[in-house]
Amino acid sequence: MLFAIKGNICCSEDIEHIRCVENAYLVCEDGVCAGVFRALPERYAALPVTDFGDKLIVPGMTDLHLHAPQFAFRGLGMDMELMDWLKTYAFPEEAKYRELAYADRAYTQFADAMRRSATTRAAIFATLHVPATELLMEKMEDSGLISYVGKVNMDRNGPEYLCETSAQASLEATERWICETQSKFRRTRPILTPRFIPSCTDELMRGLRRLVEKYHLPVQSHLSENYSEIEFVQSLCRDSKFYGDAYDRYGLFGGDHPCIMAHCVHSGEAEIKLMKKNGVFAAHSPLSNANLSSGAAPVGKLFREFVNVGLASDIAAGETENLFRSIAAAIRASKLRWRLVDQKIYPLTVDQAFYIATVGGGKFFGKVGLFEPGYEFDAIVIDDSTITHPQELGLHERLERALYIADERHLCAKYVAGSRLF
Amino acid sequence: MLFAIKGNICCSEDIEHIRCVENAYLVCEDGVCAGVFRALPERYAALPVTDFGDKLIVPGMTDLHLHAPQFAFRGLGMDMELMDWLKTYAFPEEAKYRELAYADRAYTQFADAMRRSATTRAAIFATLHVPATELLMEKMEDSGLISYVGKVNMDRNGPEYLCETSAQASLEATERWICETQSKFRRTRPILTPRFIPSCTDELMRGLRRLVEKYHLPVQSHLSENYSEIEFVQSLCRDSKFYGDAYDRYGLFGGDHPCIMAHCVHSGEAEIKLMKKNGVFAAHSPLSNANLSSGAAPVGKLFREFVNVGLASDIAAGETENLFRSIAAAIRASKLRWRLVDQKIYPLTVDQAFYIATVGGGKFFGKVGLFEPGYEFDAIVIDDSTITHPQELGLHERLERALYIADERHLCAKYVAGSRLF
Repeated sequence: MLFAIKGNICCSEDIEHIRCVENAYLVCEDGVCAGVFRALPERYAALPVTDFGDKLIVPGMTDLHLHAPQFAFRGLGMDMELMDWLKTYAFPEEAKYRELAYADRAYTQFADAMRRSATTRAAIFATLHVPATELLMEKMEDSGLISYVGKVNMDRNGPEYLCETSAQASLEATERWICETQSKFRRTRPILTPRFIPSCTDELMRGLRRLVEKYHLPVQSHLSENYSEIEFVQSLCRDSKFYGDAYDRYGLFGGDHPCIMAHCVHSGEAEIKLMKKNGVFAAHSPLSNANLSSGAAPVGKLFREFVNVGLASDIAAGETENLFRSIAAAIRASKLRWRLVDQKIYPLTVDQAFYIATVGGGKFFGKVGLFEPGYEFDAIVIDDSTITHPQELGLHERLERALYIADERHLCAKYVAGSRLF
Repeated sequence: MLFAIKGNICCSEDIEHIRCVENAYLVCEDGVCAGVFRALPERYAALPVTDFGDKLIVPGMTDLHLHAPQFAFRGLGMDMELMDWLKTYAFPEEAKYRELAYADRAYTQFADAMRRSATTRAAIFATLHVPATELLMEKMEDSGLISYVGKVNMDRNGPEYLCETSAQASLEATERWICETQSKFRRTRPILTPRFIPSCTDELMRGLRRLVEKYHLPVQSHLSENYSEIEFVQSLCRDSKFYGDAYDRYGLFGGDHPCIMAHCVHSGEAEIKLMKKNGVFAAHSPLSNANLSSGAAPVGKLFREFVNVGLASDIAAGETENLFRSIAAAIRASKLRWRLVDQKIYPLTVDQAFYIATVGGGKFFGKVGLFEPGYEFDAIVIDDSTITHPQELGLHERLERALYIADERHLCAKYVAGSRLF
């Protein structure tokens, strides 16, 4: 696995700036970047080179939060808020995944879309069903992406048809699933996935904490998305000072384990401080947060205060797996929040949103999201030649335009940890 | 021009509901709808029928505000607000259209995108240059869309390289252009286009009023988009009670002529009342209003108080000509405004946003945007078969999903006033 690709290479230089290098080489050694070179150094002279000509070579993107079983109803039923939306759309659809034949059909479509997308890494919610979750893991493995997939835990407040019968049953199923999958795949790993506090009893959360300790697994869940949800959590966890504190009391809010919390729309100062202290990743889901009328997350604040922030499509509350759409949506949401709510939190720039989509979320997977030596070789190649223009455009302009307009049609190659997917 | 098309026909039933009729016929007589039929009536038994099978047949959409010369830099340079954005991006680009060769290249790309889009009708800003504006009109005529195109008027506060030398010169050029184009085309008509009050002296505005009277032309301009702009207008028109009142004092705010005002983000009660009284059309541009940090227009209020509202891409402050994107953006912006600003103005539903995109803007062009008898035969055919799903979906669900996700790839036919474009 020693090769180079050639083209116009665009990558974050720091959190504020994208650096574009025209007609350069990006070298891959054993799945890892060896550097960007204007001319190939002598030691690489014999390397096979794939020349992408005038196309843009960009780090792969990380989707830090999405629900695979909801892909089936993307773009549907968003005229309601979170709690009603869950009951009306998400739960009935997720219940179907008890049938493997249905899961097979649905997850095949999902994994195919992920393969064709700009996403190279993802943290994915499945459903509470172990067989369907394992099937999803197989399909994600075959897709070529590197991902975490979580069997969902929920043992309270769900509909009868989508609720585990006890904390004990949920924990046993989870542990069985972990043992079956933790070493089974090369690219696909289990992640503990309590749906959110309203769905999980204290006993279940305490049991999940034991699994974190026993198996050294990361955790993903939802945080401070919607006012009704936050109130509900407060009523369930009367001792907690805020939503994140409730997770933290269960030992499921980072610190000694990697942790992703989706949304953080209404996170206050104390919650943000704790996220930073514990290294919790905020999965910013701007399409979802607008679609479900949740609000606009203070992403500029999280970002500038050096909380870990990645971008998320949040399929299906976000209608598309195309993270370019989420980049533009993140910028727009931050602008509206700035205009309508708080002029102290400046809107995201294009370069910042790009950083979040690549480096920000990539960090959850290690050294991912940059082309610096030592970073895993995740890259997408954008052919923007069909996005017409009558004038000369610089590389940064071409990239900016692609981030606003492009989709999977414009991707002509994708590499994950050095392997070419297409 | 007597024929029928067959498929799943979806169209607004009233302002709150889309009606979908499975496997039905839509009959066209001389460019006008003759009705939707579950079975072809005997009198139409001999009609040629194009069978679109399981595809969705939907009214064409109206883009009530966009800038053709800005298409060149769509998706670029949106990290600033309106007035700086105009100076930095819009004005320098528009100045290039003094050269016909450049205009030819750029407008060919623009007209081609419009032809392939879901848009069947459009109200378009050109630049202040008469030759380039006439060229744009020729290209729009060839595109098959029905459109209004406006030579822009601007005789103050512009950069030296993009400012007419006097009101007199601007008016003479405009009158010459009107005479040359008003009867030249079948589908393309001139519309008076003072850029906005900051760009037009009193003398110019009074002269444009005389042209409205002399040639019975409609008017398009910008209204209450951005705080700095609004302040600027107030400083220029000290007697006016509000921005729209300033236009009204010039006689350029509807009443005796059709009038489109783009944005209306910060329109207050009095302005909304006057728009309603004068039948002014608000061109709602949600992508633009978020991209330029202008805000979120009170579109739900305008809509429910029966002000004329159409949807607008506002190329290039909006990054795409795809009005499906603007439909989703309009719904999202109304949700964020509801959540963040004013819980009395309910968010738009999908069915309402669809109405605005079809009937709302279509009304500016007469009987356009419905399939009822007497309405012009504007239709697009959506092939959503590549938007995979594992479950059964109803027609309304399929349409809803397409509105959130589809683009020109999914259009397999388009008719404008009975003529098939592709």
